[in-house]
Amino acid sequence: MSLLIVIPNRDTTKLEQKLFELLPGETIEVWPNVQDFDAVTFVLAWLPPEDIWQQLPNVRAISSFGAGVDGLLSDAVPDVPIARIVDSMLAHDMAEYVLGHILAYKLRVSQYLQQQQGAHWYPKRAHQGRRVGILGFGQLGQKVAEVLVENNFVVSAWSKNEKNHQTVTCFYGDEGLLSMASESDYLVCLLPLTIKTQGVLNQQLFSVMPNHSVLINVGRGKHLIEDDLFVALQKQTISHAILDVFTIEPLPADHPFWRCKQITITPHASALTDINTVVAQIADNYQRSQSGNALINCINRKNGY
Amino acid sequence: MSLLIVIPNRDTTKLEQKLFELLPGETIEVWPNVQDFDAVTFVLAWLPPEDIWQQLPNVRAISSFGAGVDGLLSDAVPDVPIARIVDSMLAHDMAEYVLGHILAYKLRVSQYLQQQQGAHWYPKRAHQGRRVGILGFGQLGQKVAEVLVENNFVVSAWSKNEKNHQTVTCFYGDEGLLSMASESDYLVCLLPLTIKTQGVLNQQLFSVMPNHSVLINVGRGKHLIEDDLFVALQKQTISHAILDVFTIEPLPADHPFWRCKQITITPHASALTDINTVVAQIADNYQRSQSGNALINCINRKNGY
Ligand SMILES: NC(=O)c1ccc[n+]([C@@H]2O[C@H](COP(=O)([O-])OP(=O)(O)OC[C@H]3O[C@@H](n4cnc5c(N)ncnc54)[C@H](OP(=O)(O)O)[C@@H]3O)[C@@H](O)[C@H]2O)c1
Ligand SMILES: NC(=O)c1ccc[n+]([C@@H]2O[C@H](COP(=O)([O-])OP(=O)(O)OC[C@H]3O[C@@H](n4cnc5c(N)ncnc54)[C@H](OP(=O)(O)O)[C@@H]3O)[C@@H](O)[C@H]2O)c1
Repeated sequence: MSLLIVIPNRDTTKLEQKLFELLPGETIEVWPNVQDFDAVTFVLAWLPPEDIWQQLPNVRAISSFGAGVDGLLSDAVPDVPIARIVDSMLAHDMAEYVLGHILAYKLRVSQYLQQQQGAHWYPKRAHQGRRVGILGFGQLGQKVAEVLVENNFVVSAWSKNEKNHQTVTCFYGDEGLLSMASESDYLVCLLPLTIKTQGVLNQQLFSVMPNHSVLINVGRGKHLIEDDLFVALQKQTISHAILDVFTIEPLPADHPFWRCKQITITPHASALTDINTVVAQIADNYQRSQSGNALINCINRKNGY
Repeated sequence: MSLLIVIPNRDTTKLEQKLFELLPGETIEVWPNVQDFDAVTFVLAWLPPEDIWQQLPNVRAISSFGAGVDGLLSDAVPDVPIARIVDSMLAHDMAEYVLGHILAYKLRVSQYLQQQQGAHWYPKRAHQGRRVGILGFGQLGQKVAEVLVENNFVVSAWSKNEKNHQTVTCFYGDEGLLSMASESDYLVCLLPLTIKTQGVLNQQLFSVMPNHSVLINVGRGKHLIEDDLFVALQKQTISHAILDVFTIEPLPADHPFWRCKQITITPHASALTDINTVVAQIADNYQRSQSGNALINCINRKNGY
């Protein structure tokens, strides 16, 4: 019985050490340094290589190292329970990112910085719109909505299943999305990436959004059809985009998004998993899987989230 | 009896029209087009020329066109009641500016924009500090504090008179200021400009602030000793400054602040008086002054605010 960490291209020393502390006596290994592949019963993974699973015949459970599980849903992944991170600090950070970037746009922070670089003094009133539509009304979408409502924004949310909420206007279904988008000054994508949600940020959606509106993608890069966004910004179908996630990360240096003044790029930094706060739920799930109990924060594989 | 608008270098057509609507039948003039200086009994002023007052012997009351009255306190100004603007929209806008700029700094919005200009992808965690100290705990300072507390910041405030508050730690007096500053990640100046507060943002204050701290000046330019700030930033005594107000406005194109990466400049745009929301209190004060009643939102001339 052992726990295998599969997080390519990242220093996992601290993570390994924290897990040791919580799971004394257990075998914890970090891919690619694996003594005995057959002994691995639990995998903690983030963007694992596709071909790893065939080497691990005895896996009983898998945990994602993030809130999303989109790297763990291919047919190559064994049919075992998959857990993900649910963490109030992560939700808090995401809410602060969305609120902070909406306020920064409203207050013209980047616009004034560009004026500053040319020593130009041009006072303008802040942008006025306060309607925010959120795609995805799960752990993160709900927290973002709560914080925005507290700050006097008028919030709507779109989910798969029909919902009711006291202070948030709820939409669902394909038509619901277009209705919500047509009445939003800011549109925030906080969906999981699934077959159904891939490419949901596309020309059809942009065409119903107000011309002054701003798209914020903090879901996954593949939610967005990048070429459609580029055209929509050029034609001023929408006004601006704030992107934290991209189809290819790091965003290649020659990608045209870097040089587009209507795009604000952050390097997948909106809500970073904090080892200290999430390691307990990972250790808990390891123990549950070894003793045959159900995982916490388990996803529904059929839905893909 | 007439009302004179003295707001140099600004188009006051809309303001004049709104006042006409609220004060039908009254004479309203806009300086320098004055028919009869002796008839002027009420002046609505913003940065008026010093020599105007000797031409107006019959002024009974003065209203500032902003929350501050620092342009109306010289010896040349007649000894009559002076009112200022108190407006919940102005306070709301100021709170949104302070919250928005603190979050933008925390989230590294300007830093990522500068990286974007060079196509650099360097994810970093957000800045962690959440302690905000506010200089001035009046109409604006209290609203800013309230909004920051709602957003989980730990807030202190410094005022002239001793105060108590449920969720804000209160300081007063010279030592109180230094104590507060030494424990603040962000220090926000929302004082009125008076003989006592001029130059309060100086080397002595910067020397007790944490090295990672950020100064935000939304009071008046003369609160700040500009040279002291420049040295403090160069020596990394403090980390950054966000400035909305300057000794000379517009900030001259050759001023070194423009080119300092540790300074964020906004062009006196943090909270702009909105004619629609403030015109009623100005008309009200005009009528009060003409009928011999006390003004609303009157300042204490001895205190200077
Ligand atoms: N940028 C970053 O740094 C970062 C950090 C963390 C997470 N994320 C992303 O954020 C995503 C959401 O996380 P979460 O914890 O909030 O997930 P969650 O709790 O599973 O919530 C997902 C929400 O999306 C809705 N949804 C799923 N498929 C849909 C569809 N086809 N049509 C309409 N709505 C659909 C769900 O609807 P129902 O409520 O009806 O089921 C639910 O409201 C993650 O999957 C991850 O990709 C990004
Ligand atoms: N940047 C902009 O666009 C903008 C817009 C609007 C206003 N402002 C500035 O903001 C200032 C504050 O407005 P406000 O409406 O909040 O004023 P206010 O209601 O008069 O409050 C002033 C506060 O400052 C404190 N104070 C005054 N002198 C002091 C001293 N010597 N030491 C310590 N504390 C002192 C007062 O203390 P006590 O409570 O003990 O009296 C009070 O708490 C205005 O005067 C204006 O200059 C700037």
